[in-house]
Amino acid sequence: MNTPRNKDINSLIQELRTLQTSLYGKDFLLTWDKSEAELKAVMLAAEILQALHWQGKSMRTFNHGLAISIFRDNSTRTRFSFASAASALGLTLSDLDEVKSQIAHGETVRETANMISFLTEVIGIRDDMYPGEGHTYMLEVAQAVQQGFEEGLLPSRPALVNLQCDLDHPTQSLADLLKLKDYFGGLDNLKGKKIAMSWAYSPSYGKPLSVPQGVINLMTRFGMEVVLAHPEGYDLLPDTLTTAKSFASKSGGSFRLTNDMKDAFKDADVVYPKSWAPMAVMQKRTELLKGGDKQGLIDLEKHCLAENAKHTDWECTEDMMKLTRNGNALYEHCLPADITDVSCKQGEVSKSVFEKYRYDTYQEAGFKPFVIAAMIFMSKVANPAEKLTKFNL
Amino acid sequence: MNTPRNKDINSLIQELRTLQTSLYGKDFLLTWDKSEAELKAVMLAAEILQALHWQGKSMRTFNHGLAISIFRDNSTRTRFSFASAASALGLTLSDLDEVKSQIAHGETVRETANMISFLTEVIGIRDDMYPGEGHTYMLEVAQAVQQGFEEGLLPSRPALVNLQCDLDHPTQSLADLLKLKDYFGGLDNLKGKKIAMSWAYSPSYGKPLSVPQGVINLMTRFGMEVVLAHPEGYDLLPDTLTTAKSFASKSGGSFRLTNDMKDAFKDADVVYPKSWAPMAVMQKRTELLKGGDKQGLIDLEKHCLAENAKHTDWECTEDMMKLTRNGNALYEHCLPADITDVSCKQGEVSKSVFEKYRYDTYQEAGFKPFVIAAMIFMSKVANPAEKLTKFNL
Amino acid sequence: MNTPRNKDINSLIQELRTLQTSLYGKDFLLTWDKSEAELKAVMLAAEILQALHWQGKSMRTFNHGLAISIFRDNSTRTRFSFASAASALGLTLSDLDEVKSQIAHGETVRETANMISFLTEVIGIRDDMYPGEGHTYMLEVAQAVQQGFEEGLLPSRPALVNLQCDLDHPTQSLADLLKLKDYFGGLDNLKGKKIAMSWAYSPSYGKPLSVPQGVINLMTRFGMEVVLAHPEGYDLLPDTLTTAKSFASKSGGSFRLTNDMKDAFKDADVVYPKSWAPMAVMQKRTELLKGGDKQGLIDLEKHCLAENAKHTDWECTEDMMKLTRNGNALYEHCLPADITDVSCKQGEVSKSVFEKYRYDTYQEAGFKPFVIAAMIFMSKVANPAEKLTKFNL
Repeated sequence: MNTPRNKDINSLIQELRTLQTSLYGKDFLLTWDKSEAELKAVMLAAEILQALHWQGKSMRTFNHGLAISIFRDNSTRTRFSFASAASALGLTLSDLDEVKSQIAHGETVRETANMISFLTEVIGIRDDMYPGEGHTYMLEVAQAVQQGFEEGLLPSRPALVNLQCDLDHPTQSLADLLKLKDYFGGLDNLKGKKIAMSWAYSPSYGKPLSVPQGVINLMTRFGMEVVLAHPEGYDLLPDTLTTAKSFASKSGGSFRLTNDMKDAFKDADVVYPKSWAPMAVMQKRTELLKGGDKQGLIDLEKHCLAENAKHTDWECTEDMMKLTRNGNALYEHCLPADITDVSCKQGEVSKSVFEKYRYDTYQEAGFKPFVIAAMIFMSKVANPAEKLTKFNL
Repeated sequence: MNTPRNKDINSLIQELRTLQTSLYGKDFLLTWDKSEAELKAVMLAAEILQALHWQGKSMRTFNHGLAISIFRDNSTRTRFSFASAASALGLTLSDLDEVKSQIAHGETVRETANMISFLTEVIGIRDDMYPGEGHTYMLEVAQAVQQGFEEGLLPSRPALVNLQCDLDHPTQSLADLLKLKDYFGGLDNLKGKKIAMSWAYSPSYGKPLSVPQGVINLMTRFGMEVVLAHPEGYDLLPDTLTTAKSFASKSGGSFRLTNDMKDAFKDADVVYPKSWAPMAVMQKRTELLKGGDKQGLIDLEKHCLAENAKHTDWECTEDMMKLTRNGNALYEHCLPADITDVSCKQGEVSKSVFEKYRYDTYQEAGFKPFVIAAMIFMSKVANPAEKLTKFNL
Repeated sequence: MNTPRNKDINSLIQELRTLQTSLYGKDFLLTWDKSEAELKAVMLAAEILQALHWQGKSMRTFNHGLAISIFRDNSTRTRFSFASAASALGLTLSDLDEVKSQIAHGETVRETANMISFLTEVIGIRDDMYPGEGHTYMLEVAQAVQQGFEEGLLPSRPALVNLQCDLDHPTQSLADLLKLKDYFGGLDNLKGKKIAMSWAYSPSYGKPLSVPQGVINLMTRFGMEVVLAHPEGYDLLPDTLTTAKSFASKSGGSFRLTNDMKDAFKDADVVYPKSWAPMAVMQKRTELLKGGDKQGLIDLEKHCLAENAKHTDWECTEDMMKLTRNGNALYEHCLPADITDVSCKQGEVSKSVFEKYRYDTYQEAGFKPFVIAAMIFMSKVANPAEKLTKFNL
């Protein structure tokens, strides 16, 4: 088996050297802000760091310093992925808990961002619940620390890492892509492969849009045939469709939308069935939350769950899987999945399908700590290939 | 004074080399799963690590990686002991707070255990409140990471350390035993010594059973005369009595039960007076909690406190201590003790007795961080004696 | 620009060598317990550590060990400053959250302080809300760990650092003073300079007194002309006025009180306009809190806000600034400031004044992590100059 334990680290470093990138000193907020070479470089660095870890080698990059996380939404796996990346690079994790802190007391973002950054190397932010908010907030923080750095207040510019916003979930989608790279034996082999990014039924409501938006905007860049499927009304943000289409045409892949899950699954090489809330609902919800309209929120949830319940047939079952290429498509998921008869009565995926691909989804998740570490590493290290070579001595 | 500062570390390492153990790659969940040699090895390693710390030497065992704690019950000293052990070994502490995390959202234990373990070396769990639950949960987590490791998903098998379950509290009982070893000048000197593990009155209710169960099942293995004392009805889990009896007969010690505190204290060399809830109450409480029966819980607490109040004479007073060998038995406690006129109006121990042994109970507690560190160290290091020798250069 | 990046570290170390201090093994609780030489030494050490950080050098002082924080009041910047200092020195941060821990369960301070300190190098405490409480609590903790150390229970004496108490806020006031040293080109240049420590209007209530008390008792020691200004009734603790007067007369500076903000600002070289609650209100509040008198607390807040509202003209506006020396005094603040039209409708400072000095207040705050690190370093390292020289190799 090709595991990180027996990967040839030096040849991966050689490959990394061939890529023209401009990641140093930059944030990682959206995959679509990055070139293909830069995305490949982050993935290579992630593979190298993972292999170093599996081969028992240190990747300590910093003497000291903080890695700050700001979670404006619940998280287990991203939280631990970020903590793991920080530990591996030699940083101390510090969580900015906005309830305990004075952010609630009317401080400006600029001030707080600088106040916490005097010895900070990276700030990871999850802010995914409100359309129009998360990415905007990250830009504000980025601008604040950029200004602090330029004014000579901060010794270095903390790198921002998007741990999920309203637009994209790059640490997830790059982990998803690394799984595809590993599974199909290289990024080149993804050209022409069909991936179905499909909505699926869930008994919950209000799941963010960033995963499907991230997937359709990343896989289209590597020549895949990307089909987005959802019931009518479960639209993503329109801009993300436009960019996906444009990426597909540049890479020689394709992108199309369907309201039929079977159409999407037909002859697919990869399926990614996952629930999300309609954009319009997320926007309505943001409004109600801002207005403190509790009854409105209860009514909205009720309405949405009723709406969802019309689409319980959007489930990734054995029968659905039979439609895929040789009945054998790879199943991807960002986890946790809503598994029928396991985590809920009826959900996104049947128990038997999930079980068949459990190893694969776990391995997919296993890339995430190293994707985060790679994003930090590539932003903070001027000569990444040299540094990695030293780690591998 | 024989302090960790002037212990001869090399001779302790020599002693460790003589022991046949199979701790590498194993969890530490129950002392009764381990051989006497293994228990001795963990205690020796704890003494060595403590001496290294006092002698200003590094015991950094890991380049990086997480030590995850899961506390399903309040804790100060065990929490800080675990944090201290992690820091000393070079691990980053990460607390899995199940309120913040998505465990509450119906994830399976298997999935979460693997998702948090991609760079994790140890998972410490406290889950002590519900009979039949804590140990079972730890086994589930152990099975999950074992599977993940065997399937090639995890680079190493995180070691599990029981920070207190429904059955045992091994980090506590081994600290208690290390105190006895130190106080009486060696484990061999414990043979034939009498220890009274006695229930004592407390104005609170619902204290777990793991401390007395752990003590009667550990001290019986080293030839002590163990007497368990409690009022009628304050039974421990029956299996733990059976194993204690069996251990005593193997080691040449003894084990018996009495409902008379004075009988237990008579000529005792060591007394361990501590409150606990009757097993039946803990079981009833678990049921009521599961059923969400708030009134039932209030009634149960009322009933229990009234029941407790019949036994306020079960207090470790100066008069009780006069019954012990030369009126001079060692007083042990896991802390915090309910001290009469200090932490409550009437409690487990009188102020003067507690004060007399304050130094001893604090020293007893001081072993705990190193017991935890030793459990991790022995599980994760293939050649512990070699590694410890290097630390001592 | 003279930044920490191009400071000559060796010449700062030389200066440090000339100072006679007795900081080793001592706590840092109040600036007025320290000699001028000791205050200078802490500031020099802070500058050196800051320069080391900016020049990319390690200042790792410890192999391992805990830095424990106890925050009995909200905090962002002090929390992150302490975390940053701990990370830089090689310590693991561990927060004692008294809600999660068993302190709430009636443990004595002595016991808890020792239980958490077996591998602890420093304990930082913020306890600033109740007059008569914070400093007293810190002394209790100090006594507890001193006893534990002397009895041979603790391998080293954890240093206590006051992160703000009812009397003083030394990590803040020393950061304020470092800013003045930097701004005016040396401590000697502060002699004869006028600083206005002035109350200012805020729409909130219950802000602690430790900042003004700390400032008047520190700046008077370095020959400054210190004027304390507040409306009638907004008194500080009387003892802190007595000591400030005495410091001023020793240093050749001066200290006086006025109830007129303009009088204080007239020809001032530095202004420090900041809100605080009257001492009598803080004492009343403590009483009500202890008695659990919720209605009393609501009434008190109402009364105080109404009282505050009589003094909305105590605002640091452009017009007020025109009164200062050449209309150009330095504006200091501990942040976050209540900025009119930014963080509130009407506050301590106008938007334009704050903006003009934003860089200065941020730089002022930037000293704090290194002041904390310096306090720890000077307390724990026997030969600080030698150690710092090694860091600079």
